Amino acid sequence: MQRTFVLDNFKNIFLNIVLCCPDIPQNTGNIARLCVGTGARLHLIKPFGFTLTDKKLKRAGLDYWDNLDLVVYDSVEDFFEKNNNVNFYIATTKAKNFYYEVKYTQNDYLIFGSETSGFALKYVDRYFDRCINIPMKSTVRSLNLANSVAIVLYEALRQILFK
Amino acid sequence: MQRTFVLDNFKNIFLNIVLCCPDIPQNTGNIARLCVGTGARLHLIKPFGFTLTDKKLKRAGLDYWDNLDLVVYDSVEDFFEKNNNVNFYIATTKAKNFYYEVKYTQNDYLIFGSETSGFALKYVDRYFDRCINIPMKSTVRSLNLANSVAIVLYEALRQILFK
Repeated sequence: MQRTFVLDNFKNIFLNIVLCCPDIPQNTGNIARLCVGTGARLHLIKPFGFTLTDKKLKRAGLDYWDNLDLVVYDSVEDFFEKNNNVNFYIATTKAKNFYYEVKYTQNDYLIFGSETSGFALKYVDRYFDRCINIPMKSTVRSLNLANSVAIVLYEALRQILFK
Repeated sequence: MQRTFVLDNFKNIFLNIVLCCPDIPQNTGNIARLCVGTGARLHLIKPFGFTLTDKKLKRAGLDYWDNLDLVVYDSVEDFFEKNNNVNFYIATTKAKNFYYEVKYTQNDYLIFGSETSGFALKYVDRYFDRCINIPMKSTVRSLNLANSVAIVLYEALRQILFK
């Protein structure tokens, strides 16, 4: 077996990726591929800027969409009601903690807002100590959503599985 | 200043991202945005599956393309001739070292092959000890190219700047 597929050895260890109101189907498709590739569950909070049958969504997720562990919520309130006792982090440029400064554990929820408007400020304020950001230069307003998920998800995996 | 823009403080520290024969303009656009956002130089090796004036390339790079530090090469041979004394790593699923197991230093070159065919096996064999991979499940053949660049680039930044 190629060593790159080491995650096959970890049947029960997974993380949760939460996308609130994603706008761009290609990003959600790429994130679905990341989730299948790491055994993470994908939680999608409505409304989306596309339908779940969008061809661009499926194309970016390649043929992995059918392997995806997917949960859909009607609203942010619905998400927090159904996951009221979990350990979570919210990625936002408005945070003061860098994503690699927190200590991730198995089953953590990593929450990301929409490409255009980020995560609702009400929750960023309420859970400010749960917020994390990714260092960058101010020449960009933000990184691509799928790239941001990749960076935080793999740092969490690195901490949990590989140290 | 928002703490997320900490990279503004590091004027002279940068990394090099090398894409050999990229096929999909949106991926190269997203990677350009990653490079501008981190102060990395982007090296593109021909042939590409698109032109550098492709609208999809510019759209994925948003309005950051003009801020990009870009070098273009005619071939892999041209790249290695012009960068014959640099420290580099080649990302490939055929490597035995995980990307977080190597020690990155300032000015390193992080090399990625094309979306469809990866990096030329001739060089993977020749530089096998310089090859790195990203752990994943075998349910996917690979991760999206821009996501792979994001993961390795930010691990290098984390090691260089933040420890």
